[in-house]
Amino acid sequence: MKTLLALCSVLLLTGRCSAQTPQKCQTPRLLSGSISLSTQDDQVWAVAKYIYDALGQRIRLWETGHVQNKSLYVDLLFLFKKGVVYTIDDRNQTCQKNPLSDQFHPFHIPHNASLQSQVILGGSSSRKEGLLVNTWKGDVPEIGGKYLATVTGFGCFPVSMLYYSARTGWIATTYFNAVKGIGDPEQLNPPPFCPAAETEDQKLDFFSAFF
Amino acid sequence: MKTLLALCSVLLLTGRCSAQTPQKCQTPRLLSGSISLSTQDDQVWAVAKYIYDALGQRIRLWETGHVQNKSLYVDLLFLFKKGVVYTIDDRNQTCQKNPLSDQFHPFHIPHNASLQSQVILGGSSSRKEGLLVNTWKGDVPEIGGKYLATVTGFGCFPVSMLYYSARTGWIATTYFNAVKGIGDPEQLNPPPFCPAAETEDQKLDFFSAFF
Repeated sequence: MKTLLALCSVLLLTGRCSAQTPQKCQTPRLLSGSISLSTQDDQVWAVAKYIYDALGQRIRLWETGHVQNKSLYVDLLFLFKKGVVYTIDDRNQTCQKNPLSDQFHPFHIPHNASLQSQVILGGSSSRKEGLLVNTWKGDVPEIGGKYLATVTGFGCFPVSMLYYSARTGWIATTYFNAVKGIGDPEQLNPPPFCPAAETEDQKLDFFSAFF
Repeated sequence: MKTLLALCSVLLLTGRCSAQTPQKCQTPRLLSGSISLSTQDDQVWAVAKYIYDALGQRIRLWETGHVQNKSLYVDLLFLFKKGVVYTIDDRNQTCQKNPLSDQFHPFHIPHNASLQSQVILGGSSSRKEGLLVNTWKGDVPEIGGKYLATVTGFGCFPVSMLYYSARTGWIATTYFNAVKGIGDPEQLNPPPFCPAAETEDQKLDFFSAFF
């Protein structure tokens, strides 16, 4: 037993023993990748590339998909510190500017979440055949919502999110092809033709900007 | 270019170059693991441990969950070669025996499936933070169904299945904690009190036995 404890102490110091214990964690603060998103009523199927900057509270999204059987392409830049979202049309060099109604929510596991499960997606008989993930559940009481958030056991990369509110029903999001960091930070600044756009009256939140 | 081709030839021979090219593949023929399963209408949420024997065409399932807001625990043994499914009650040593209406479908990617995408779930900036998966799509014309099947790029372990038919709507299945092989092959034989059970009239297929 003493040997095991001593071994664990060494491994804890090197991060190898603690790494598999489910911990509420924070995803990398700078992240680039893709998501797929679908709603329970089949009205929305979309895939988006994203750049995520938790330090500057900025998110850029290039989304393609179908909303109510209509094709959709939308390029969005959320600047949460400034409380605005730009809908960018690069081809026509035009921009729509709306006030943002919600605060920035960094992708981390909230302190009041509780562990639902720790599993290996796929298999564990050989290397590369499986992925250790932790799934956390929680409530969003201010809107009567709830969520299941799955992140990688190593690195805290988002893997999937199942979010429910009475207004939206279930929204399922899968995260893939993520890399730490941001290739081109300029894409998190509004293009030159954007800041001059007049601010629309309609406030948007993160999800309503999508749909 | 020649150097690259030569390098790839070497890697092909060692399996390193070909391993990442999406190939229609067959999952391990003996597999143990777990699945979670939910239906689009929220009527079914279930988790099941399974043993899968593609050689003997046998599947054992221990399922717990909720069907139409009622709790469920069911222990099923599918013997496809014999065309029967046993619903086993170990505590009371009783057994229900129903004819099976469908054939065994080994979990492989069918020859007429087409590649939907190859992505890394999670991230790829460090080891253990992501999982290379291939998603295949296809139709089941005899019942007007369609599916999206995701398997690991290495090892062909099932990861998820999204199956649609007009009768069922979407059924989402996630596969996890899989290991190659079967710990206790006896669990794929009916317990002694089962074979004597009278066969019920009602034919069951794989999904209707679940629900």
